[in-house]
Amino acid sequence: MIDLPEFDARKFIERACEFIKEKVDESNSDGVVIGLSGGIDSCVVACLAVRALGPLRVRGYILPTITTSDQDLYDAKLIKDELDIESEYISIGSIYDEFISSCEIKNLPQDNINLARGNLKPRIRMSILYYYATIYNSLVIGTGNKTELQVGYFTKHGDGGVDLLPIGDLYKMDVKKVAQELGVPSLIIKKPPTAGLWEGQTDEEELGMTYNILDKLLYLYLEEEYSMPDIAKELEIPESEVERIINMVNNASHKRNKIPILSKN
Amino acid sequence: MIDLPEFDARKFIERACEFIKEKVDESNSDGVVIGLSGGIDSCVVACLAVRALGPLRVRGYILPTITTSDQDLYDAKLIKDELDIESEYISIGSIYDEFISSCEIKNLPQDNINLARGNLKPRIRMSILYYYATIYNSLVIGTGNKTELQVGYFTKHGDGGVDLLPIGDLYKMDVKKVAQELGVPSLIIKKPPTAGLWEGQTDEEELGMTYNILDKLLYLYLEEEYSMPDIAKELEIPESEVERIINMVNNASHKRNKIPILSKN
Repeated sequence: MIDLPEFDARKFIERACEFIKEKVDESNSDGVVIGLSGGIDSCVVACLAVRALGPLRVRGYILPTITTSDQDLYDAKLIKDELDIESEYISIGSIYDEFISSCEIKNLPQDNINLARGNLKPRIRMSILYYYATIYNSLVIGTGNKTELQVGYFTKHGDGGVDLLPIGDLYKMDVKKVAQELGVPSLIIKKPPTAGLWEGQTDEEELGMTYNILDKLLYLYLEEEYSMPDIAKELEIPESEVERIINMVNNASHKRNKIPILSKN
Repeated sequence: MIDLPEFDARKFIERACEFIKEKVDESNSDGVVIGLSGGIDSCVVACLAVRALGPLRVRGYILPTITTSDQDLYDAKLIKDELDIESEYISIGSIYDEFISSCEIKNLPQDNINLARGNLKPRIRMSILYYYATIYNSLVIGTGNKTELQVGYFTKHGDGGVDLLPIGDLYKMDVKKVAQELGVPSLIIKKPPTAGLWEGQTDEEELGMTYNILDKLLYLYLEEEYSMPDIAKELEIPESEVERIINMVNNASHKRNKIPILSKN
């Protein structure tokens, strides 16, 4: 089976630091704020931000709900201690509860309610991150990677609502390489990625595919322009699985593109 | 003094209805949800949505805070009654208070706190609109106009966080023409526009310029590529005022553009 193309993680780290510094400077900001989940993506971006700006210009926010695992909380705290950045720990449960009690009026259809509730959480986090970004004249730095952005595995105007995306063109497996190069603890690199939507949830289970396969599928489709049958053959998976992922990519285009505006004439 | 170019409001209304229907259909949505503020923009967009989709596929949400004026509340209710759409009235004060009590930790710098607090409100509204959009398999229809979008007079990922912008290419004065053509009550067309940030606030006072002048300034700068001195001369205003607005346009580009992603190589 093919591999993703060779990728110079060290060189990428240098470029990412320049990119972060440039965006902060050109917006006359004093630094960045970041949400720390305890996962590899936010850990990598926090490390890059500290390399780019120094620890005094990076603020980390740990914003758990009741479904956040103890391990993720522990890892998020480990990262902020390692990086020696200022951080706040704010449980978003009471804000979430207030939304629910304000919005859940009688006779509400129950079909999509779990999805609606789930998406509230990243939107609350976005609102808190921008609250502090305004207070500290900072940018909100995003932690989305290419795999998530392409399949739409993020909440529009939630975790997708940020000012810059330094790892937004890296597949998940590339993020691991960057993490290794940065010296991220191997426990964080190796643990199963989770969006923390419910207890014990893992991304790969929910996406129905390992990141190893998913990354290669996206690479062959987006960059090598393979046909669906050829991707299926190369990756030794059913064509229906390839089709399912490509449909996700197409259906998520509205999350990646500019908001459509009707032209005046 | 010059006028904005002639504009066929009737033809625009037809095209806007097609645009709304097309976006709803291509996303396999059942309809749209909209935040009703009582102002002209949300009133016009609600009318367009009902013309495009019929009243059963449009839901209006009136989401006031304590600073929302009685007049705006009255007008928002008038509109939803006129259009005969389902609507909900949810005061967002308790959610806002919960954010403040969760976020306002001791020793927080006070410099930008009013701005940070003010921006929370449109982000709470966005979160509520998407909550219902998910429940009812609908799109969130935006009410931003070109004047606001260009000078950045909106909250990123707040009222700017929507799925489509049917009047996003219309200057404020063009929106008035469309409102007249749609038969919007003249009281709503004529009252001073306000973002409702505090009691008695008006947009024109905060922007330091009437919409009549601001629209022409933007038109000359963006579409006729006039120089700053020529704009000042044409509009009979100081060049420093022209420069101030053009700086706003440039500084707001990050609110209009796609989120910058660092390329992998």
